[in-house]
Formats: sequence, C-alpha cells, structure tokens
Amino acid sequence: MSSSNALTVLVSPTVAEAEKTIGEAISQRKTLLIIGNCWVHYLGRARSKLEPGERILIIKEDSSLLVHRSVGYEPVNWQPPGCIFHVQAKGNVLEIRAVRQKPSESVKVFFDKIRMISALSLVDSGEFSLYASEEDMHKAILLKPSLLEDGFKPISYEKKVEPGFVDVYGVDKNGKLVVLEVKRRTAGKQAAFQLAKYIDAIKSKADREIRGVLVAPNIAKDVQRLLVTLGLEFKALDPRKCAEVLKRAETRKLEAFFREETRQ
Amino acid sequence: MSSSNALTVLVSPTVAEAEKTIGEAISQRKTLLIIGNCWVHYLGRARSKLEPGERILIIKEDSSLLVHRSVGYEPVNWQPPGCIFHVQAKGNVLEIRAVRQKPSESVKVFFDKIRMISALSLVDSGEFSLYASEEDMHKAILLKPSLLEDGFKPISYEKKVEPGFVDVYGVDKNGKLVVLEVKRRTAGKQAAFQLAKYIDAIKSKADREIRGVLVAPNIAKDVQRLLVTLGLEFKALDPRKCAEVLKRAETRKLEAFFREETRQ
Repeated sequence: MSSSNALTVLVSPTVAEAEKTIGEAISQRKTLLIIGNCWVHYLGRARSKLEPGERILIIKEDSSLLVHRSVGYEPVNWQPPGCIFHVQAKGNVLEIRAVRQKPSESVKVFFDKIRMISALSLVDSGEFSLYASEEDMHKAILLKPSLLEDGFKPISYEKKVEPGFVDVYGVDKNGKLVVLEVKRRTAGKQAAFQLAKYIDAIKSKADREIRGVLVAPNIAKDVQRLLVTLGLEFKALDPRKCAEVLKRAETRKLEAFFREETRQ
Repeated sequence: MSSSNALTVLVSPTVAEAEKTIGEAISQRKTLLIIGNCWVHYLGRARSKLEPGERILIIKEDSSLLVHRSVGYEPVNWQPPGCIFHVQAKGNVLEIRAVRQKPSESVKVFFDKIRMISALSLVDSGEFSLYASEEDMHKAILLKPSLLEDGFKPISYEKKVEPGFVDVYGVDKNGKLVVLEVKRRTAGKQAAFQLAKYIDAIKSKADREIRGVLVAPNIAKDVQRLLVTLGLEFKALDPRKCAEVLKRAETRKLEAFFREETRQ
C-alpha cells in the first residue's frame, strides 16, 4: 500500500496536534473526518449560527465541507466544492474556515474539543447508475409536472382509452388537453404511431384541441419528421432524472416535516 | 465521562470484528462512521447501483444512512431516518442493509475491506438559527416567485417610485400588477401605510388594476383590519425560509452542473 493511501487516525488530539494534522490533510487534498464539540457560523447569502455540540465535520477531496449532526439526512452546514480553507489554533480553540468567492460566503467551525480525526485519500473510480421504469417516469411527471413543461396539470394516468391505456394525460397552461406516451429508451416509429392512435380515439369523443407528446430520453433518427407529419410533439426526458425526482420527493416529505418547507 | 459517551475506533478490523462492532453500535443508536471499499445497491422508487470504491458510510442516531464519496456535497446513496438495519458477514464481505417500509425501499452496502470504524453517541443540543435580511428576502422571491404565489412573475426590484423604492414588483397569473412591501419582522401599521402610498403613486400613472401585498413573517394584531380597509393583502413569509432558498439555489447551480438537473 502506498503512503498516499495511508490512513491517519488521531484520538483526542490537542489543539496543536489537530491544527497540524488537519492542515496537512487539506494541503494533500485528503478526505478528512473530524468528530468533536464545535460551533459554526455561516455568513454569505444568508447568515446562520449553530450553538455548541458534538458533530461530524467532513472535508472532501474537492474542497467541499459538510457539518453533520447526530440526526437528519441533510448536513446542518455545508459549502460546495472549491473552498479555500484556513486552519488556525486560537488558544484552546481550533478554527477551521472554509471560504468561497462567488458568491462570497464563509463557514467557520470552532472546535474546543476534538474526539477524533481521520484522514485518507479515498480510492474510488466506481460508476453510479440510476434506473427508472416507465411507471417511475409516469409517477415522476405526476409528482413534478414541470418535467413536461411549465403549467402542465396532469389529470390522471394509465387511463383506459381504446385501443389501450394512455400513459399520462392532463391540461396545459392554455387549457389544451395533453396526452403523453412515455418511453424509457429511444422512442421509435411504433411509439409515434401508438400515440397517434390514442389521439385519434380521444378526438373522436372530446370536442377540443389535443396535443400529443412523446416523452423519452431521445428519439430515433427519422421519428422527428414522422411526429411533425402526425402533428405530434417530442419532449426529451431522462429516466435517471425521474428516478432522482422520486427519490428526492420521498426525502423532502421528511424534510418538510422538520423544516416547515413546502414541497417544490 | 460516562461510558455512553465513549468513542470506539477500530482500524482495519476483520469482517467478524466489524460485524460485531457495527451491530452493537446500531443497537445502542450510536453515530457510526465506516470507511472502506464498498459497493451499493438501492431498490425502491427507483433502482441504482454504485460500483466498488472507497467511501464513507454514516449511520446516524435517528437510523438514517448516508454514503459519501470523496467528492460532492450530496451523498451518493442515502436513506431517511427510521431505517431498520441488518448487518451480516457473508464470507469476506460485510453486508449492511437499511430497510424502510413506506415506501418500501432498501439500501445494501457491501464492504470487502474496512479501513476504519468509529462509533459514539454525539452530545448535541445546540440550536441552529438561520437569518435573512430584507434584501435576502427580495432576492429569494426573485429566485423563486412561488414563495409569493403560483404564477407570480417579478419584473424588477427596488424600483424607484416616489416617495421611495418599491421592494419587489411584478405581475400575477391574471396579469394584474403586484407591488410587494417586504418586512423581516412582524409588520405593523407603518408598513401598511407605506405600501398604500406606493400603490397610490403607481395608480396615478398606470391605468390598470394593482394589488398591494405586505410580505412578512406575520402582522401585528390590528393590521389585518387596516389592510382590508386599504384594499391590501398579506402574505406570510418566514425570512428563514428565504435564507434556505438562497442557500439551496447556490448549491443547486453546482449540482445542476454535475447532474444535468434543471433548476426548480
């Protein structure tokens, strides 16, 4: 094992030891974990204060910063990647400052007691892959209709319309009926014809303007022309984006409970 | 120091040692940090896979779970509070499973090499306070106009209107002009009179319907009646909520870059 992959662990270090170890780890762009009693000031686009308590401070290899408490999925304080760090012992207190320029904002973490420091370079080149089924995509659109377009209001989904089921249908901001055909892969001619059939079936019953939108991550080469001929539209939507929306929606419900935040 | 506040640190434990320590820490509802080489499967409202690499797994005292990589503000995998955990050694691999019931979803983390485990109960009762100035509130409304109401479109802010400056003004979904007077504390009669003056000044020039909205976390006791008399409205908006929107907007820009996520 190379020394760059070495793990440093300090238990109950002094402020001076902590200052040295943390400073070195940051300059070597290691991932740092610091557990201890701390208080935090944030000043930037808003202002916040966190009173003393034991927390976990994480400084990542991209110079982002997270302060995590013992509860909650979200960090209580954070800075995005690209911070400049200043580490300084001031008497019995260690100050770690993470500064960004655009916008100007800083997080200051003050430790008066450090329980543990660990530092190492994480060896990680693994790919992350996220999948969503077509049903997941329907749900994501219902949950966040702006995935289709601003002002879209879904009415129902998997509605029976001879000769089958319409994936999602609703009304656009101008009051026009919108029928969606959703595909999780590149949409081909079959999808376009299927949608056209539904539109015809609905037109024969409803006496109003109807838009047919093919929703898929992308369309096959010659489908765009076909869509135009059939009077249909295409909206690019990545299933991974839908998976993200679903996963986030779940998390938000809980956050909303704690934070009195409204659903976005 | 009581034993409940004890810190456990294991460097390069065997799978069997890790299984025992992690199982105990979870049953004692301690905060757990595990650094090691792992891969992650998520199955629930979507599906994801993370290939092997060195990461940090955090299990919190509320039974939430986070998997952090060496870069990025957001965890790559997570589960909200209230998970049921199963820890099991399978040959040379340690499987940690975090399961939720509603919705049914599970995150499985498989470690084949653990660099470090640390466990402790974090003593933390500190309050977190977030502040926003009135200018911050203006910016938050410009950034996310639905803070005022759906369909609101801001046109400008701090617009000069004799006898001073209008905080924010825009158009509502029905095309009516909307003028906002924003206060970061309980709004009193003065704020209502000030808004009425601006409305009068604008009415004398523009020949269209104008709504005046007093935006503040709350209003003083007898102001509601005054607002009705003056033909004005009140919209409750917490400055902390605005601070949250600003802070998140900043973070999202970066996320969007990495995730191809559109701004919400």
